[in-house]
Amino acid sequence: MIILGIDPGFSATGYCILHKQKSSIIMLDYGFLKLSPQDSLPLRIETFFITFQQKIVQFQVTTISLETPFLGKNAQTFLKLGYLRGILYLLAEQHKLSLVEFAPRQIKQTVTGYGAASKEQVAHVLSMLFPAIPKPLKEDVTDAIAISLCGLWLSENKNF
Amino acid sequence: MIILGIDPGFSATGYCILHKQKSSIIMLDYGFLKLSPQDSLPLRIETFFITFQQKIVQFQVTTISLETPFLGKNAQTFLKLGYLRGILYLLAEQHKLSLVEFAPRQIKQTVTGYGAASKEQVAHVLSMLFPAIPKPLKEDVTDAIAISLCGLWLSENKNF
Repeated sequence: MIILGIDPGFSATGYCILHKQKSSIIMLDYGFLKLSPQDSLPLRIETFFITFQQKIVQFQVTTISLETPFLGKNAQTFLKLGYLRGILYLLAEQHKLSLVEFAPRQIKQTVTGYGAASKEQVAHVLSMLFPAIPKPLKEDVTDAIAISLCGLWLSENKNF
Repeated sequence: MIILGIDPGFSATGYCILHKQKSSIIMLDYGFLKLSPQDSLPLRIETFFITFQQKIVQFQVTTISLETPFLGKNAQTFLKLGYLRGILYLLAEQHKLSLVEFAPRQIKQTVTGYGAASKEQVAHVLSMLFPAIPKPLKEDVTDAIAISLCGLWLSENKNF
């Protein structure tokens, strides 16, 4: 299993690609994609599509892991988040990937053992697991690592 | 200008392709796409992508016309509408199409001359303009024809 955890957003999309090899977890790639607000919406969406299409092919991703979104204060932001999620669903189908999705609480619970854990607590556990990653990490990236890790751990124990 | 007016939705997506030739408007295609709720979400999204990719290529579409969505009672429906709109933005960029978008009120105003016109009024005007189309039309298709027509008429008078 090679899992792409992704936290999509128009300001920044955090991502993390993990690979489980025997008993160890190897981080193949992580980072974030910034889309320029100067570009048109269709161009930004195509950039997002191309970027993650390339990651999927390059790292032979088998699974995409996502966080269930919740409706915040801004309905337009929620709609636009849908644009990026739609692209990820398309990529999943085009490349025959599995797709797993978790509620924010479940991700915190899985990573820290506590569903209402703070962002700092999540970041702390991740820095213990992956000591080689330079700190501090951008929040979007921390989220993506947690989403990816949750997908990796939970997918081993049950089928979706 | 060959314009694809589209009213996306997971239960049914109405579409209409219009072509202006000299002073007359020719309807090249119209209809609706139903996505099976038995299919997975990624598969339905890919079916949507492939269907309209083929329409764009077959009819040499130059412009996509959309209606501005509004947040209804169900936030999840709004998010899922975003998935399909994201795919249309991607197709617009991949095929170098223009993209125009109108508020529901503006579409009714343009087609009937009255921004608060009823659905029946809109359907009436469309049946006068396109007498060859069999009636009654599915509501999603009527909406798509109105969206397409609005894009065709208004794009001639101003640049977006």
